[in-house]
Amino acid sequence: MREKLFVAAVTLMLIAPPSGTAHGRVRLPAQSQTKTLVERLGYPRDAKLLIVHADDLGAAHSINSASIRALESGLVSSASIMVPCPWLPEIAAYARAHPEADFGLHLTLTSEWNLYRWGPVLGKERVPSLLDSSGYLYPLENEAAAHMDIKEAEAEIRAQIARARALGIQPTHLDSHMGTLYQGKALFEMLVRVARENKLPFRVSQDWFTMAPFMPSLLGPDAVVLDRTISIEPNVAAEDWARFYTNEIKNLRPGVTDMIVHLAFADEEMKGVTFGHPNWGAEWRQRDFDFVTSDAFRKLLKENNVKLITWREIGKLVGKTEH
Amino acid sequence: MREKLFVAAVTLMLIAPPSGTAHGRVRLPAQSQTKTLVERLGYPRDAKLLIVHADDLGAAHSINSASIRALESGLVSSASIMVPCPWLPEIAAYARAHPEADFGLHLTLTSEWNLYRWGPVLGKERVPSLLDSSGYLYPLENEAAAHMDIKEAEAEIRAQIARARALGIQPTHLDSHMGTLYQGKALFEMLVRVARENKLPFRVSQDWFTMAPFMPSLLGPDAVVLDRTISIEPNVAAEDWARFYTNEIKNLRPGVTDMIVHLAFADEEMKGVTFGHPNWGAEWRQRDFDFVTSDAFRKLLKENNVKLITWREIGKLVGKTEH
Repeated sequence: MREKLFVAAVTLMLIAPPSGTAHGRVRLPAQSQTKTLVERLGYPRDAKLLIVHADDLGAAHSINSASIRALESGLVSSASIMVPCPWLPEIAAYARAHPEADFGLHLTLTSEWNLYRWGPVLGKERVPSLLDSSGYLYPLENEAAAHMDIKEAEAEIRAQIARARALGIQPTHLDSHMGTLYQGKALFEMLVRVARENKLPFRVSQDWFTMAPFMPSLLGPDAVVLDRTISIEPNVAAEDWARFYTNEIKNLRPGVTDMIVHLAFADEEMKGVTFGHPNWGAEWRQRDFDFVTSDAFRKLLKENNVKLITWREIGKLVGKTEH
Repeated sequence: MREKLFVAAVTLMLIAPPSGTAHGRVRLPAQSQTKTLVERLGYPRDAKLLIVHADDLGAAHSINSASIRALESGLVSSASIMVPCPWLPEIAAYARAHPEADFGLHLTLTSEWNLYRWGPVLGKERVPSLLDSSGYLYPLENEAAAHMDIKEAEAEIRAQIARARALGIQPTHLDSHMGTLYQGKALFEMLVRVARENKLPFRVSQDWFTMAPFMPSLLGPDAVVLDRTISIEPNVAAEDWARFYTNEIKNLRPGVTDMIVHLAFADEEMKGVTFGHPNWGAEWRQRDFDFVTSDAFRKLLKENNVKLITWREIGKLVGKTEH
């Protein structure tokens, strides 16, 4: 997910006003469970578990190179892949050669850059509602959500899963690029259904429920739900990057947290890809890379008793539960 | 065109044995004309006219950047664009901002690299015969030609022309990436027909006729046919690059010659794109860039009375003739 979930959530509230529960209050499924997610994973209740997750793999060579290097540093534990993007074969080759690596699919229904774009896996004849007038996927998640026929979106994400598997990727989880599949009840219901049919866990977090109150009832009481996400936003100045992440780790609460990062090098390719868009741009991604591969980050995790986990561990719960 | 035409021609002879003429001899249309192409363009018969043509624009940011810089140096006069490739929006934006630039379409029915690939403009449901088992265009021109339904290929190249125009590109000419559309009589006939319907000149050269004897009769006597092409091949060692081009320019004969170059920087993106394929690879393209933007090349053209022309000039003949 590239965009701020808060923005996504506000958007979805505009297109799908919160229905809430009978008492107008959001019910958090984990509260109804005996065991927390941490306990279900076999850790003591006060364990601080962290997925450090690189998004957007496959979107550019620079992203693939930086993310692979970060995964191999041991400080990034998981990543997800954008199947419609042109550098998919590179990351698929890496995944085949490294079956232990934790790769999910970053289901993609948008193509957000100005000079460099992609279309769906299915053709425009099959999924016309996913395409803008230039024949690519819509740039923005709210545009995509507003125009899409959900059956076409479902066919497309099933095709993305099929293409990934055909190329030898064995996904450990699913999530949604720019949060498009969190943009409303119908889209989220479809994500949940497709994920469960594929016996794959998917990114969803309790700290989203206030903004997306339709989620708990669709998930049900036994769903695998992360406790929270950390994702740096444009309100953090470049010079405060390390300070932001440092504070987040120092203040990490017990539970499973997904720290979502966007890694690339600030090279010519990445400057071209993100031209005109400093947020989530080339320098932004270089800063994320520099921080998550730093000795300071390694030390911080150790000093704060933070344990890195992967989606593979979480996936073991799927099938044992209703999820 | 990325691949050696000789290789392409040998391949097409394997799949479509030369039919020749009634006397088993290739008839060269220009011999039947009163005026040479040079004269039809308004130059004296002994003029040495050269198109310095950059292929493959749109295929990578590195290719776009290097080709734009070379075009702006004045020493590259023309270029052609690959519509199915992800960096099309970048070169389309440049074309819109520079309507004087001479851009054709490098009609694309192959996706030849290992780690970075693209599919057709039309979807796989519409043009299944163009796709390999991984869902991209076939890597090699002979594979593509052997599998394709020509009606699907025609629909795809018409869609490429339409998408280019929708993005504001006004193509001055057509040619064929990796020579796929020169791989046999039926494909070439289709190229000629589509080009004529669109009133666009297309790359075809008299020095190809020996290897592709079906061409003259399909072109007819008044067609616009270049006199020859220059294209560096893998048998030239890296250290002989400048020597090869220098000899070609020094020995340039009167007529219209198309010097086909492949420009890019040997940067990380381009090394990734061309991974495992040194021929037409990143260093190759950097050498081409270095030569065609050099003072030595500028001096060489001047000293040998070589005049650069564009496809726009040639295009003025289309419509005046049967072509």
